[in-house]
Amino acid sequence: MTRRNPAQTAHHLEKFFSPKSVVVIGASATPGKPGNVVIRNLQANGFEGKIYLVNPRGGEIEGLKVHTSITDLPDNIDQAIITLPAAATMETIRDCAAKGIMSIVLAASGFAEVDPSGAQLQADLKKTIMETGVRVLGPNTTGHVSMPSNFTSSFFPLGRIPRGNVSYITQTGNFSGISLRHIMSAENFGVCRVAGLGNKIDVDEADLLDYLGQDPETKSIFLYLEGIKNPQRFMRVASKVTRKKPTFLLMGGVSNAGASAALAHTASLASDERIIDGALAQAGITRLFKYSHLFQVAKALACMPLPAGNRVSFLSPSGAFTVCMTDLCLSVGLEVPDIEDKTRARLQDISPSFIRMRNPVDIFGSVALHSFEFSYGEAMEAVLKDKNIDAVVAILMITDETGVPSYDFIIDLAKRYPAKPIYVTFMGQHNHNVAAKAYLERHDVPAFMLVEEPFEVLGILNRCRMAMKGE
Amino acid sequence: MTRRNPAQTAHHLEKFFSPKSVVVIGASATPGKPGNVVIRNLQANGFEGKIYLVNPRGGEIEGLKVHTSITDLPDNIDQAIITLPAAATMETIRDCAAKGIMSIVLAASGFAEVDPSGAQLQADLKKTIMETGVRVLGPNTTGHVSMPSNFTSSFFPLGRIPRGNVSYITQTGNFSGISLRHIMSAENFGVCRVAGLGNKIDVDEADLLDYLGQDPETKSIFLYLEGIKNPQRFMRVASKVTRKKPTFLLMGGVSNAGASAALAHTASLASDERIIDGALAQAGITRLFKYSHLFQVAKALACMPLPAGNRVSFLSPSGAFTVCMTDLCLSVGLEVPDIEDKTRARLQDISPSFIRMRNPVDIFGSVALHSFEFSYGEAMEAVLKDKNIDAVVAILMITDETGVPSYDFIIDLAKRYPAKPIYVTFMGQHNHNVAAKAYLERHDVPAFMLVEEPFEVLGILNRCRMAMKGE
Repeated sequence: MTRRNPAQTAHHLEKFFSPKSVVVIGASATPGKPGNVVIRNLQANGFEGKIYLVNPRGGEIEGLKVHTSITDLPDNIDQAIITLPAAATMETIRDCAAKGIMSIVLAASGFAEVDPSGAQLQADLKKTIMETGVRVLGPNTTGHVSMPSNFTSSFFPLGRIPRGNVSYITQTGNFSGISLRHIMSAENFGVCRVAGLGNKIDVDEADLLDYLGQDPETKSIFLYLEGIKNPQRFMRVASKVTRKKPTFLLMGGVSNAGASAALAHTASLASDERIIDGALAQAGITRLFKYSHLFQVAKALACMPLPAGNRVSFLSPSGAFTVCMTDLCLSVGLEVPDIEDKTRARLQDISPSFIRMRNPVDIFGSVALHSFEFSYGEAMEAVLKDKNIDAVVAILMITDETGVPSYDFIIDLAKRYPAKPIYVTFMGQHNHNVAAKAYLERHDVPAFMLVEEPFEVLGILNRCRMAMKGE
Repeated sequence: MTRRNPAQTAHHLEKFFSPKSVVVIGASATPGKPGNVVIRNLQANGFEGKIYLVNPRGGEIEGLKVHTSITDLPDNIDQAIITLPAAATMETIRDCAAKGIMSIVLAASGFAEVDPSGAQLQADLKKTIMETGVRVLGPNTTGHVSMPSNFTSSFFPLGRIPRGNVSYITQTGNFSGISLRHIMSAENFGVCRVAGLGNKIDVDEADLLDYLGQDPETKSIFLYLEGIKNPQRFMRVASKVTRKKPTFLLMGGVSNAGASAALAHTASLASDERIIDGALAQAGITRLFKYSHLFQVAKALACMPLPAGNRVSFLSPSGAFTVCMTDLCLSVGLEVPDIEDKTRARLQDISPSFIRMRNPVDIFGSVALHSFEFSYGEAMEAVLKDKNIDAVVAILMITDETGVPSYDFIIDLAKRYPAKPIYVTFMGQHNHNVAAKAYLERHDVPAFMLVEEPFEVLGILNRCRMAMKGE
């Protein structure tokens, strides 16, 4: 196989992410079937390109005409989404290539992740790809998402996907499916490009990272990989991308048992993580160690900047949190430094004298004396102005008895101090916290249900800041 | 001060936790004031003992007669809750002692945690306690809770507190306040005894641990401490208690900055944790490192047994979770072992042949072929029966399109396999997950919003099992 030059690679991926036309091969009229869900997803997201459908039965599906064969299609459609079984794949790809359809998403599983006969199919598939010159995403993937084009190849029911600046490259199709549903319903931020690599017989993480590095719509990049196909090339690409964009990686299959699960999942042979760990650090990639951080850290960056340093101030309605969250900050590489004298004076102004105000900010007494909005608002603004502070976390405590405040002052502070991230977390009455989180996140202030989460996220962002500076 | 013998100590704490009568000194008619909230809390929880009130203004509060002075009270009331300012404390304690009231909760802050004059007040308080022989919980505490007696001294609005078998000993009053509200509204388990130590001028963690160790209502014990007053006595008591009851400790103030916050919070001088770490292990205490684990681990034990071993099986609707959660299990000391041949055969029976069933259980294909309830139910029962498995986690994926199943089969399995813990977690559509969690927890199946949480909890429970066996 001759090596494609980078310009050609970018061109081929462009048709995955910005197609002007797409054909669903294996289109189905049956709700819930992949060949039907993918059409509904395209329609729900308002894809403006032309949608073609192929099914030997013909007729009409979801209001669109169905072609009975690939040969009936016009030439040079930008992209094909194939939802047929594994065994039908080779012939379909040849038919596509013959019609000039060179970018193909393969949903089918049943390849190397299953058994030797699946592995043989995968070898045949590889041969077909080389012979035809098509580019393939998959097989064994839920597909991909490209919100700047209102486009998705996912066969997992998604509905309207919110658009944002966070992009994902994941071994699993999960992020174009179940995890995206979680993000949409629980975390309230939008995505830009999402690609499930699956068995990555052709398009791999290095191709995609290269594309996203140059993508003006993508501000931060999150990867979940169960193996790295070409580590040298990947590191080379990453070294360039991470100079400009925060880039995070969760490696799956790092334990022996996890590696065995990865083999069953996407036929991945996990690399020895001790060997690649140093290389990742050198390439400026920030490692994650929890799946949930793939969306919690993403949320933090979706609407707030990367903190300029590791110095945190936080407001707490309980002395126990000032103690425990300070411990946590220190354990993840953050500082909870002294604040400026004028900041301390302002905090003391709004507090009963029996509390000695400092950082972290014990806000309970002030709230009892004044009000939630006044005390949190004044104290947050004081520490946001402080030159010793890079990020601010507000731990809120809302109950029926305190009453539910307006959170608009927090949204306003976030707008007036855009250089410093503000995160919110909670302890108290669950229903109020749930409502506060949803409201704040709809207005671009990230909120976290458990009190440790924003501090853990800040620790990861601090590692990212250092990785990007090569520290 | 003469040392009280253990029997006498137990007797004194008995009046804290099972009082037949209580007097609120500083009773207030003003809603929201501590001296009013404590009365409402007692009434809301149906305390059946006699409630006396003292306020120089007399009259009636919350339907109860108010005595104008302590001297007007009958003799030998079991317990006094004093909600007066710090400066009034000494005289009030002497008046209580004169009337035979020997168990006293001191809510006031403004002692050693604040400044030198507060430290002087605390020294005077200590002298008064020694001279009168009263036992004091506090000062600087939100109070305590004792649900077997439907009793609380908390001045944080709580309403009706659910009764359970988990008990807390915490430096902070928080667990009789804001954290208890979180538990009640977000975690859905009941508590037995909760004591906020505050500045622990008299009653300390060793006294309480000794009491809870003998308390037939308490099944597991969680401590949050910012310092250990008498480490040798505490370890001696713990060595006995941990033979029978799972006992967990989060130490606050372990970082230098955290220690400084602890000094400001409860005037605690945090011990050097490296010195006590070995001693805690030897005493059979399981250390926690996150505040949220104080309720997440508690919830896991509130209605499920401690697992008999470290061997976990889990059901996943995504290959990515089989990989990542296996990695996580291994990293926290759990195994994800091979299952028995007959279990594997049963799993293969209910699955499409293109998925090779194993542990962890990739359940997605089976659900697509059968139904959520059938596939999860059969697979969970198969692994629950397996002699290689000690605990089972089900990762659910519910969306509008899958439909919302009945979760009763999980509740039924929990009843039929009481020797093995079952936990539930989620990925998918948030609103369904929230509803599922609430329903399952109301029926004694612990559920966790983030997918890592049950595995992290199982890792901690495994450390607990080993600590209790002296491993």
